[in-house]
Amino acid sequence: MRKLASIVSVGMSKIGRFPELNGRELVVEAFLEAWDGCKNLDRKDIGAVFVGNQSETYEHQIMYGSLVTDWLGLLPKGSMRVEGCAAAGALALSSGVTAIVSGLHDIVLVCGIEKMSLRSTIEITDALMSASDLVLEQHNGMTFPSIYALMARAHMSKYGSNEDDLAAVAVKNHRNALDNPKAHIRKEISKVDVLKSKVIASPLKLYDCSPVSDGAAVAILCKTELASRFTDSPTFVVGMGNSSDTIGLYEREDISWPGAVAQACSNSYQMAGLAPGDISFAEVHDAFTINEILHYEAAGFAKRGAGQESIRSHQTDIGGKIPVNPSGGLKARGHPVGATGLCQIYEIHNQLNRRCGKRQISGAKYALAINEGGSNAIVTTHIISN
Amino acid sequence: MRKLASIVSVGMSKIGRFPELNGRELVVEAFLEAWDGCKNLDRKDIGAVFVGNQSETYEHQIMYGSLVTDWLGLLPKGSMRVEGCAAAGALALSSGVTAIVSGLHDIVLVCGIEKMSLRSTIEITDALMSASDLVLEQHNGMTFPSIYALMARAHMSKYGSNEDDLAAVAVKNHRNALDNPKAHIRKEISKVDVLKSKVIASPLKLYDCSPVSDGAAVAILCKTELASRFTDSPTFVVGMGNSSDTIGLYEREDISWPGAVAQACSNSYQMAGLAPGDISFAEVHDAFTINEILHYEAAGFAKRGAGQESIRSHQTDIGGKIPVNPSGGLKARGHPVGATGLCQIYEIHNQLNRRCGKRQISGAKYALAINEGGSNAIVTTHIISN
Repeated sequence: MRKLASIVSVGMSKIGRFPELNGRELVVEAFLEAWDGCKNLDRKDIGAVFVGNQSETYEHQIMYGSLVTDWLGLLPKGSMRVEGCAAAGALALSSGVTAIVSGLHDIVLVCGIEKMSLRSTIEITDALMSASDLVLEQHNGMTFPSIYALMARAHMSKYGSNEDDLAAVAVKNHRNALDNPKAHIRKEISKVDVLKSKVIASPLKLYDCSPVSDGAAVAILCKTELASRFTDSPTFVVGMGNSSDTIGLYEREDISWPGAVAQACSNSYQMAGLAPGDISFAEVHDAFTINEILHYEAAGFAKRGAGQESIRSHQTDIGGKIPVNPSGGLKARGHPVGATGLCQIYEIHNQLNRRCGKRQISGAKYALAINEGGSNAIVTTHIISN
Repeated sequence: MRKLASIVSVGMSKIGRFPELNGRELVVEAFLEAWDGCKNLDRKDIGAVFVGNQSETYEHQIMYGSLVTDWLGLLPKGSMRVEGCAAAGALALSSGVTAIVSGLHDIVLVCGIEKMSLRSTIEITDALMSASDLVLEQHNGMTFPSIYALMARAHMSKYGSNEDDLAAVAVKNHRNALDNPKAHIRKEISKVDVLKSKVIASPLKLYDCSPVSDGAAVAILCKTELASRFTDSPTFVVGMGNSSDTIGLYEREDISWPGAVAQACSNSYQMAGLAPGDISFAEVHDAFTINEILHYEAAGFAKRGAGQESIRSHQTDIGGKIPVNPSGGLKARGHPVGATGLCQIYEIHNQLNRRCGKRQISGAKYALAINEGGSNAIVTTHIISN
């Protein structure tokens, strides 16, 4: 098994709504935690900066590469922003890992940031719509809740999943987040709460949808041979997969199946020489509850069409056969869009280092992260080991 | 000298204003030229797609990675958008080269696209402003013409450059574009035309500013050992540099000096084992005429403070000691923001292959491309050889 790169330290801001903070300040908060978590690192040894960020609309700000590099004292190093809607955070990680593997850099900083709460719900819905097809979806009124509602209806109709199954995903992830001090929403909910919550796009209700969050997360990566200089507790990227699907849902043969997620997972497993059964736990992209069930199937934790069985049998609870979203997931830890992929890595790095207190998964060895953008249209997956 | 990657084919749409075309259609136009320019390539051998694009505002569209991958028939390959304002095109190239060097991919597609003309001048000015500092520049009314006007005033005051020198850059680049059939503006102008044109932000006048353009450009890259399979006329990336500066002009010690440009050029020269005197010609980032003069200095073609001497003595004309912007530059070939970095590579690849007709530079061996975003705040440079 090849260790592509080492993660030597991670940091994450608190996730929530912070009207008093700019995005750059959330990045500083995340970076300082990562900085304090490693040793012997000189800022000038960081060779490049990759920043995941979804939308310029929220802060009227592009050039996040330069902004972060400046505010973290890393000038004059090269930087760039990467974007694939909500996959931006994992794309930053993937770019950083590629830079390490290339040998062009020994140490890089990867970062994800989104500062959403400056805008109204309508403005945010509109900014997210830009991840669907301009010509054939946006103009016809598609929003992301309606896109995922169509996927849910297709899955229900074809495979017999139901609104109770979706609610169970929300209940589990809210429960997990209770033990996560940085989570956006720390509130236990019942299935009845979910089922009685306001309909957003039937069958999805308010509690089937992730919240609008501010937040940032970072990871410091280096080539594996150097890791012990900076930390006694590195983790390692041992698999990586990237795949794209049609941006428009209307172009797909079967909207109940996230093909690019399956492809990216397959790429990751192949690179790591692992199978789904080798994975100890996963952080997946539950922007809407249906998507967690689709990701069970695409990751190979359940057979195609049988994702709902995993939640019904509690296999994906902490303590179950394959725990999913111990952090609380997008649903409850929160979903600062461009940061989410690195929030997943923050949880994984800490779980693999046994730092997660009451939500700790015992004996974890390999973790899978699935981060996607749009309607599972850009997918980046990573397998991390300790 | 190490050949990091080979450019086997390039394509570029016509640059201009095309109300009848979406951005994706411009990408298809550019791709088909590149596709027809190489042989033995199977779409499924392209391992990844990197797309440079500045702003979601123009088309209300993010996820350009997925969109391009879909429209070019390259699904399910991985993709991402990269952004550093006007440096996006070269950042896509840099990402593609890094992916090749890493060995994770053998063949990749890099692309730049901007479809600007759907919006009014005010909307475009506003979208470009998002590349300056939200907190301390945008709110005080800074626009990009005013930012570059400040740089021009500082240079004039410190070194004695003048409005005639700026005008001479515009005159030269307009003359070069006369012989470029894909250029946005093919119109000879005189110094008097420039000096009498409308003041935008003094000392910059209308003809000191690049136009608002639609356009796309692509390059197909592969590892050097494979190049001969796809073409008899490859070029090679032999140097690459990336650097960042403060996003805000107010934070810089000397705004007459583009420090990140000098740093990125220095990185490129060092990687290639070359000096400024080895460069046969350059494409530099003349979004405003003053910036071409600043880039002469930062690239080492002129001493610091003496950039105006290069234009006065016609050293940067085609046929001069170091021709700059034979394509017509941003000023006259046009400036589809996220595509510009790859428009530069399109010119360089064709010049190095002696395909440029009346604007051909004889005996060209090494070319430098300088692509920057914001106020020279993200800079990516490449040295290409034949």
